[in-house]
Amino acid sequence: MTLEGVVQELETDLQRVGQKVREVVKSSNPLLARVTEYFLSGSGKGLRPILVLLSGGFSKYRDDRVISLAAALELVHMASLLHDDVIDNSDTRRGQMSVNAKWNNQIAVLLGDFFYAKALNLVGSVGKEGVEAVAQIINTLTEGEFEQLSCQFNTLITEDDYFQRIEKKTARFIATCCKLGALYSEAPEEVVDLLSQYGFNLGMAYQIRDDILDFTANKKTLGKPVGSDLQQGIITLPVIHGINYSSKGSEIINIIKSKKPDFAAIYKIIRETGSISYAQKKAEQFSQRARECLLPLPECKAKNALRLIVDLTEARTS
Amino acid sequence: MTLEGVVQELETDLQRVGQKVREVVKSSNPLLARVTEYFLSGSGKGLRPILVLLSGGFSKYRDDRVISLAAALELVHMASLLHDDVIDNSDTRRGQMSVNAKWNNQIAVLLGDFFYAKALNLVGSVGKEGVEAVAQIINTLTEGEFEQLSCQFNTLITEDDYFQRIEKKTARFIATCCKLGALYSEAPEEVVDLLSQYGFNLGMAYQIRDDILDFTANKKTLGKPVGSDLQQGIITLPVIHGINYSSKGSEIINIIKSKKPDFAAIYKIIRETGSISYAQKKAEQFSQRARECLLPLPECKAKNALRLIVDLTEARTS
Repeated sequence: MTLEGVVQELETDLQRVGQKVREVVKSSNPLLARVTEYFLSGSGKGLRPILVLLSGGFSKYRDDRVISLAAALELVHMASLLHDDVIDNSDTRRGQMSVNAKWNNQIAVLLGDFFYAKALNLVGSVGKEGVEAVAQIINTLTEGEFEQLSCQFNTLITEDDYFQRIEKKTARFIATCCKLGALYSEAPEEVVDLLSQYGFNLGMAYQIRDDILDFTANKKTLGKPVGSDLQQGIITLPVIHGINYSSKGSEIINIIKSKKPDFAAIYKIIRETGSISYAQKKAEQFSQRARECLLPLPECKAKNALRLIVDLTEARTS
Repeated sequence: MTLEGVVQELETDLQRVGQKVREVVKSSNPLLARVTEYFLSGSGKGLRPILVLLSGGFSKYRDDRVISLAAALELVHMASLLHDDVIDNSDTRRGQMSVNAKWNNQIAVLLGDFFYAKALNLVGSVGKEGVEAVAQIINTLTEGEFEQLSCQFNTLITEDDYFQRIEKKTARFIATCCKLGALYSEAPEEVVDLLSQYGFNLGMAYQIRDDILDFTANKKTLGKPVGSDLQQGIITLPVIHGINYSSKGSEIINIIKSKKPDFAAIYKIIRETGSISYAQKKAEQFSQRARECLLPLPECKAKNALRLIVDLTEARTS
């Protein structure tokens, strides 16, 4: 099975999620409608809705609330991307101009707020756990971003700091998608817990790989310029390893402290010191843990698909 | 009774609201804590919590949820101010530097998101109506801002457009504060309705007066430079009246179309054409309607205080 296969299996439900998103963000304001349309047309594969739906696949019961939930979580994700692009001054998102670049920061901030409001509206109809979860996600994402801003160009950042940050930026959100999908399809408690842990580990692996791709990918596959983390002083796992566990640590520090880090120079060093491979191994460990979380679950299509998603995330950098 | 008197009467409860706000926004991230502290230290009198608490004064029952609700709505208001200052490029807020000016847009966007998350968290514990109301408020505020952005420098804007916009930007939020305060203190349905209408009319009057003050106030009392609406091409009631109902309409249009509107010139015209007085009369009409909504309510301290708030809003521009 490929990711296309997974998506095909879920097609009807994913379409319902997409419809729900489009339905709730409909607006009579022409500017708002135009910006929304532009942003949605460039939106990705929807990893979060896929995970919500698959995690809802361990019970026979497909509640309508699972669809609303998937739509709400995708809206939260999109809102956070809109604000992230303002925060990072990014001008590209998934190969097209970001909303802040095509319009301006103002419009991007507002569209993000609008999406948050719509997500909240949807999740309010789902139930108390959903509301709490969305509040927690926005809270955690914001804290993660604050930590990132606090640590720009800080070469003293440790692996622990990094893991805490990506937990907040990515892993907890993915964990919540899996947890709520299972919860609202009335799966047994142990299934909810295992899927939540699966999501956490998948999210950690995913973010580490994303950070590696910022070095190893090319602009086309990445959908944004490579090296953009480093340009902004965001220090990720390969660089942290290079600083702390290689003989070239002080060299890396000097390049970063110049405030206009020479991407090629750092990339060359961390490739040679094995720091890229180290980060890859860490990602593999998290992938492995994600797979282990699936083991006790009953065999079913959803389980196969969730395993495949781990494999596909892994294939991104290997 | 003065506003100080009202605040004094509510002191214990307002302190509980303030404490609740500070409690929920507490953060271990030093940057986040510092920016939060700065912003809170410059925060205003808290009209929204006051209205929530007073509207909760028509039943004997002071539910803990009313305190949480007041704190949540104040957080939503503060979040919207943070984002508004980014949207309007404002560098002053209540006489001190805005967060976007003192730090940057990034920090202001994030702090706003953080406050939204905390508001949501609080209101999630209050109940379904609260969550729906907060979703609706953020939604309406955003639509109001989008309408404002869509109409910048548009001299064809009508009074109806204007009233719709300020309804979205201000009046519905104030109405919701009054409505929920009454609702969660278990006031009878007709009291809830009357207070909601009171809030709506108060909010309309308040916003019209705020827009007048952008012409008539001085920087010190306004806490920001005068004429800033006009500089951004935001066309408010006095100007709309001047364009449509005075002999100097085309003159005003020409000044606005220059894209760097001469504030003093426009102010001179709209004062002479009676457009400022016209806007004041409109505000008075809404104030009057707000007072009328109070008439059927039982006599009590809360009612007197709500009437006083109308008077005080009125005193701002007369």
